[in-house]
Amino acid sequence: MLRCAVVGARGYAGLEVVKLLLSHPDVEISYLVGSDDTTCSLHEYIPGLFPGIDLNISGHDLDQVADESDVVFLALPHRASMGCAERFLKKNTVVIDLSADYRFKHASVYQKHYATPHTSPALLKQAVYGLSELNHDAITQTNLIANPGCFPTGVILGLAPLLKKNLIVADTIIIDAKTGVSGAGRQPSAANHFGELHENFKAYKVNQHQHAPEIEEQLTALCGQKAAITFVPHLLPVARGILSTMYLECKKGVKKKDIMYAYQALYRNQIFIRLKDYGQFPQLSDVARTNFCDIGFTFDQKKSRLIVITAIDNLLKGAAGQAVQNMNIRCGFSPESGFFA
Amino acid sequence: MLRCAVVGARGYAGLEVVKLLLSHPDVEISYLVGSDDTTCSLHEYIPGLFPGIDLNISGHDLDQVADESDVVFLALPHRASMGCAERFLKKNTVVIDLSADYRFKHASVYQKHYATPHTSPALLKQAVYGLSELNHDAITQTNLIANPGCFPTGVILGLAPLLKKNLIVADTIIIDAKTGVSGAGRQPSAANHFGELHENFKAYKVNQHQHAPEIEEQLTALCGQKAAITFVPHLLPVARGILSTMYLECKKGVKKKDIMYAYQALYRNQIFIRLKDYGQFPQLSDVARTNFCDIGFTFDQKKSRLIVITAIDNLLKGAAGQAVQNMNIRCGFSPESGFFA
Amino acid sequence: MLRCAVVGARGYAGLEVVKLLLSHPDVEISYLVGSDDTTCSLHEYIPGLFPGIDLNISGHDLDQVADESDVVFLALPHRASMGCAERFLKKNTVVIDLSADYRFKHASVYQKHYATPHTSPALLKQAVYGLSELNHDAITQTNLIANPGCFPTGVILGLAPLLKKNLIVADTIIIDAKTGVSGAGRQPSAANHFGELHENFKAYKVNQHQHAPEIEEQLTALCGQKAAITFVPHLLPVARGILSTMYLECKKGVKKKDIMYAYQALYRNQIFIRLKDYGQFPQLSDVARTNFCDIGFTFDQKKSRLIVITAIDNLLKGAAGQAVQNMNIRCGFSPESGFFA
Amino acid sequence: MLRCAVVGARGYAGLEVVKLLLSHPDVEISYLVGSDDTTCSLHEYIPGLFPGIDLNISGHDLDQVADESDVVFLALPHRASMGCAERFLKKNTVVIDLSADYRFKHASVYQKHYATPHTSPALLKQAVYGLSELNHDAITQTNLIANPGCFPTGVILGLAPLLKKNLIVADTIIIDAKTGVSGAGRQPSAANHFGELHENFKAYKVNQHQHAPEIEEQLTALCGQKAAITFVPHLLPVARGILSTMYLECKKGVKKKDIMYAYQALYRNQIFIRLKDYGQFPQLSDVARTNFCDIGFTFDQKKSRLIVITAIDNLLKGAAGQAVQNMNIRCGFSPESGFFA
Repeated sequence: MLRCAVVGARGYAGLEVVKLLLSHPDVEISYLVGSDDTTCSLHEYIPGLFPGIDLNISGHDLDQVADESDVVFLALPHRASMGCAERFLKKNTVVIDLSADYRFKHASVYQKHYATPHTSPALLKQAVYGLSELNHDAITQTNLIANPGCFPTGVILGLAPLLKKNLIVADTIIIDAKTGVSGAGRQPSAANHFGELHENFKAYKVNQHQHAPEIEEQLTALCGQKAAITFVPHLLPVARGILSTMYLECKKGVKKKDIMYAYQALYRNQIFIRLKDYGQFPQLSDVARTNFCDIGFTFDQKKSRLIVITAIDNLLKGAAGQAVQNMNIRCGFSPESGFFA
Repeated sequence: MLRCAVVGARGYAGLEVVKLLLSHPDVEISYLVGSDDTTCSLHEYIPGLFPGIDLNISGHDLDQVADESDVVFLALPHRASMGCAERFLKKNTVVIDLSADYRFKHASVYQKHYATPHTSPALLKQAVYGLSELNHDAITQTNLIANPGCFPTGVILGLAPLLKKNLIVADTIIIDAKTGVSGAGRQPSAANHFGELHENFKAYKVNQHQHAPEIEEQLTALCGQKAAITFVPHLLPVARGILSTMYLECKKGVKKKDIMYAYQALYRNQIFIRLKDYGQFPQLSDVARTNFCDIGFTFDQKKSRLIVITAIDNLLKGAAGQAVQNMNIRCGFSPESGFFA
Repeated sequence: MLRCAVVGARGYAGLEVVKLLLSHPDVEISYLVGSDDTTCSLHEYIPGLFPGIDLNISGHDLDQVADESDVVFLALPHRASMGCAERFLKKNTVVIDLSADYRFKHASVYQKHYATPHTSPALLKQAVYGLSELNHDAITQTNLIANPGCFPTGVILGLAPLLKKNLIVADTIIIDAKTGVSGAGRQPSAANHFGELHENFKAYKVNQHQHAPEIEEQLTALCGQKAAITFVPHLLPVARGILSTMYLECKKGVKKKDIMYAYQALYRNQIFIRLKDYGQFPQLSDVARTNFCDIGFTFDQKKSRLIVITAIDNLLKGAAGQAVQNMNIRCGFSPESGFFA
Repeated sequence: MLRCAVVGARGYAGLEVVKLLLSHPDVEISYLVGSDDTTCSLHEYIPGLFPGIDLNISGHDLDQVADESDVVFLALPHRASMGCAERFLKKNTVVIDLSADYRFKHASVYQKHYATPHTSPALLKQAVYGLSELNHDAITQTNLIANPGCFPTGVILGLAPLLKKNLIVADTIIIDAKTGVSGAGRQPSAANHFGELHENFKAYKVNQHQHAPEIEEQLTALCGQKAAITFVPHLLPVARGILSTMYLECKKGVKKKDIMYAYQALYRNQIFIRLKDYGQFPQLSDVARTNFCDIGFTFDQKKSRLIVITAIDNLLKGAAGQAVQNMNIRCGFSPESGFFA
């Protein structure tokens, strides 16, 4: 059995990792580490937990955690992961980091968009961007997996086939994204007060969201030329899910069947990608509490205008689910392990 | 024109008072006082405000406010009202206090349930409990109106006719109340996080809510004997409204028509009380954004079991609406003034 | 592998049965029968389904279904189950009926409250009321399990220990219940229009709900004397869950520890019953998507007033979950089989 | 007093017209006409109505309605307005039609997108598209006002200043719109079942919505060249409101101040248009239950990419509110009459 630890186990994403690990046939949980030294039962945080499970979340010496774990999931706020990833890597523990700390190739980009110095830039080189469907081989080879952001996951999965096949103009990509509230975490604030969100809807961080540079870096790598996006996130009065509506300009001569083929070619064998029939589109309720990314599109050939819509669960495919999917890849497990009861 | 000030104008209840005053034909707003010295436009807090209105909420010297106001609404947290009511009364300004500070006859009861010393007990004698429909005459005679709590308003209105006519057993009253989230105010906390409330429902402060002694004191006064209640509030995933389901034991020989008559006798001329036809019951959407209290009941004569259900908007009839209703009574205005556009 | 069929597999409850069977290690699905002859993939109804599963819902000859199934779940509207249960029983297929058709001992009670003649009264004698925790032994012995209603499940589990130990007065039980919308099924109507439910809350079928006689029959059987309830259901703007707040009169001399002991004695070994610490109460989010029934209580000895609150997921413990739990009992499987991934 | 009738008074939009008329100082209601001959009190449909109002909705002879009304609001389904507008016009009653029947210049366009023959094409010439802020003068001159669709209102108000000043490329306009549920009316269907909408979000009628040709016709008229849009509506789990996010390509050399100036020039004196400060954006809760259209934008000059976001209440500015605003214009009333209590 693979020994897995979760650091930051009390947060929304950390708890989803824990739930998946509990239903995974090939792993056992070695440590659940909280953000401080208080100890509490896992039952307090997962109300549906099997009564027979006796696990605690508490403070732990991270070196000991590393010694006794094969894989560690860092479900920490940005900046905190940088402070401890190296301790795990030194002991050959595979690190799957859910924060943004190792997602960029260059520390300077991170520093600009996260407004903080990068304290372990040396590790950026070995970090692999863990978009499971796209970087499978590299993921098998690294001990430091930078798990993608929630918005980038849904967006990049919708665009990768098009960019790889050179079907769309890479610098006029428009992304209108809508996310549920859990994306903002558990910490109370005016922004997640029930009275502020219920019966409301709004855009936020318009063209200023920290996930935009992450998306651009990945899209640029996919198509080999400078990709540029317009990115407007909106906040939905639902708990979970991201739906991204993308407006794209196809290159001259592109036909519907080229688009269809691009998706099928890349995702044919991907269990967690579901292509909708032409003219059908995803909805949040279809992906809620799953690791699926649903993708639909429609194409107006006269205008060369392509609309792609993707939907994911932000806490699963957009965070914890993809993290476990990456563990399955890295450790040679079956892709569906842990995901279907 | 009557000059009205609102102290605590940025809170949920204070803003509802302001909205009502703005549509009131006989009053003008003299001052809107916030909890600190920052100044902001009323437009920031009331997004639907008429563009031509130019009013600010800011800090003010309360003596000046008193000098230039005929009525002041104190929409302050409990404890804060005690600190300033006297300053207004000394200048003959009518005080309508939305806090609990002057609702009890005896300081000791307040001190027990609000866990704080009462700093102006001398005023309790002159304070009138502002349940508009029940205490009309006393309200016309006082300068200190203690506006009822939100739960007590809906509960007492449902029970008063029964107790006054001696139809029910006063010490076995059961109240199962359900409130929307705005009752807990604007301050962010884990308790009003969207993720905590959405798709959830629970009881809270079971038999320990601070409104229970307020209810008991008023019911006791109504029936002339010791009333005792079992009171369980619950939290609904809606913004506004309180629905109270009450289970009562009728005295021997009471008939349906006695109950019907008791309600009609007391409320026949009350514009804000709506009695449902027998067997029909209130719902929150019927009273939302209104000052109405809807009342329905059903009676099982064989068991002597009476069920009464009342519904109010917690911010209006349960707070700001009743406060303005009390002003109308105290100042001799028409009862509907300010309420119907 | 036990062969299981689900008849009425497209409804809310039927689909939950299917999901549980899919994760159950000891069963295989033989047939999924819809309400008509159209055939559709199970994927259309369960969006999170494992992609490798290839199952259809369609019309089938019920005798063939019976021949090739060891257990059949009837997730049909009331009245429809009566029409087909016998066909399964004749072939020795165990029938777990989720409708009300076989819940009453006497056809006359059914006929009165469901306003329809009972067409197979002969089977009522062999039917066992499938409240898993209370009727374990009888369930093991029958081929016709009448799965309890959703409200009765949460209510009876909260009251059974008290009635069995003779701690409460049986004819003054008050039940204030609140249910999510899924309880009313999938059929569109004015009653489940988003605009009618969202931001609303109301009582319905006050003292006239068809689950009241079901509850009374079971409570009477538990305590050996005529039980009588006052039952007021309310409709919550949430998808799933029932929270029941019960107001009870304890017999003279009953102490808190007697109550505590009664619950512990009956439920000590019941995996799906969770007793809250004294003064703690259940909430819907703790039981959503689980088969748990959470129970909390508080006792005012001076008044002999006991408040019990229970929470369940209406589609699981209140329907499909309990049905599978009953199958586990009847077929000798481990109680948690199918429930924890 | 102007005598106003509402035909189709039981629908969502019709009732909002009635509410506004009731608070309008210069009008009286002559008739409230329902879709059939049943008669019901207005109180059944407007729960917050002033108790003293005694109005019924019922069937009426439309010629009589026309004889005794100066203005009639047709709040009917598409197709039904065509059947009766002429009867009112013949009697010189001003018709304000909330359906799509008279919004297009040419019957052929209507017939294509509404899949029905146009039965009164002769009237199209005299009909004025009632976008209050843009067509003020024409509205004062006509007896047939075609009230705009809900999506077109928010979209066109956001784009008109840009097109009139020739600042944007007219044939690459992208509109990502999100609407609340009330837009789909009161009729129960699978689409507005609570269980389908709650905790869900999806696109619908992608590039196929019947409001797209309406928008294109108006934009084309505004800029004098063929406008073409990509239009994707989405369905939000809220009751009211439309937020439209628009992605625009500015013409060469356009600067931020040109955009700012275009909005200010057109809307400076428009009481119901509120321009947000640069970089600030609208939200639904700011416009709910108001007749405002809030507009915000951000401009990336390097990319010539302009993002405009507008928000309206779909039932008010998007339907009933604009209808009454048009009546104010047509009848020479003050623009705010009826809107601010």
